[in-house]
Amino acid sequence: MKLELVSHTLCPYVHRAAAMIHEKGVAFERRYIDLRAKPDWFLALSPRGKVPLLLVDGRPLFESQAIIEFLDETHPPPLLGTDPFERARQRGWVEMANDLSNAQYRYFVAPTREEQAAAAATLAPLVGHYEQAVASGVIAPEGFGLAHLALASSALRFVVVEDALGVRALEAAPRFRALVGRLAARPSIAGTVPADYAALFVRKLVERGSLYTRERD
Amino acid sequence: MKLELVSHTLCPYVHRAAAMIHEKGVAFERRYIDLRAKPDWFLALSPRGKVPLLLVDGRPLFESQAIIEFLDETHPPPLLGTDPFERARQRGWVEMANDLSNAQYRYFVAPTREEQAAAAATLAPLVGHYEQAVASGVIAPEGFGLAHLALASSALRFVVVEDALGVRALEAAPRFRALVGRLAARPSIAGTVPADYAALFVRKLVERGSLYTRERD
Repeated sequence: MKLELVSHTLCPYVHRAAAMIHEKGVAFERRYIDLRAKPDWFLALSPRGKVPLLLVDGRPLFESQAIIEFLDETHPPPLLGTDPFERARQRGWVEMANDLSNAQYRYFVAPTREEQAAAAATLAPLVGHYEQAVASGVIAPEGFGLAHLALASSALRFVVVEDALGVRALEAAPRFRALVGRLAARPSIAGTVPADYAALFVRKLVERGSLYTRERD
Repeated sequence: MKLELVSHTLCPYVHRAAAMIHEKGVAFERRYIDLRAKPDWFLALSPRGKVPLLLVDGRPLFESQAIIEFLDETHPPPLLGTDPFERARQRGWVEMANDLSNAQYRYFVAPTREEQAAAAATLAPLVGHYEQAVASGVIAPEGFGLAHLALASSALRFVVVEDALGVRALEAAPRFRALVGRLAARPSIAGTVPADYAALFVRKLVERGSLYTRERD
């Protein structure tokens, strides 16, 4: 099975798919596209016009979670277990990870004190839910499943922004913070982004006028 | 297994879950909540604060797609087949159905000519993708799978709004229009909404100032 992952450098959903392939230890090719100038061949294959797109022997699959479960079903051992209730719970937490990713990004890029505070008010309860889920074992603190994989970019970004800009966003959630540190260092997550990911992400925040990057200067 | 579906009357994601339970022919209870005044017990069980929520012997599952796949995995025969590529493709089209649902709603509620035209410009290519998918058999014109289930509310709304307000939104997509008519009449889809669904939905459009409801007067 030949796998080609159509990618965009900083996309968190591409990151999850790439990390999944890495977890499975299989070879794949990557093809980067510019989302501001989407090529025609891409639009013909991706009805939502989004990345990631996975070409499986040339046949396209779209939607990160569909791609991830395809990879999980075709490359044993599965990350998703066999108990239906637990499978559903993991899938629910993938959606929570989408919320977290969006809230975190809005928080980091916020250009004004007011927008930063509004984003923080969205982010804080999500972080609280994660802290509780790690404490209760709904998200295993030492394990790795689909709910963990879905945190790939969020985990890396919490660490990158703390290291580069001194933003400590997880002080109130020590268990989740420990998990985030572990995930950010995991080879499938740390090793499937460009080597200059931290610089690229901080540059993105600068471009967006992030208050955190302006306060640094 | 005792199933209780926490619901909101017009929510398209609740509708999918209810239709799935109906497809499986199993008994379930419903509990309606007011999303403008979410009860504390609900917020304690639903970390995203959204419906549907499924209580399985009292244990909560959140996220419609997670709930739907749980029901599919626990109540044979499965709607989702066994071929991994086809499973992933069906799941991708569930996301397309989310896009369609959002675009359709924005189109129907648009209060000005400009907003209606903007919504139509989003809706038209989605309908075009569906027409192509039905023509190619990616979405089976006579079958019923997860990609069809995900169209539950959209299908019903196309029919309701055409019947009540004369809006013919699928003229350019005859194959998809035929599928929509078939789905809107399917017992699991037509039979899992309130008996006055059409009136409720039109009233919602009136409340939102929909141009289509104002032009009718």
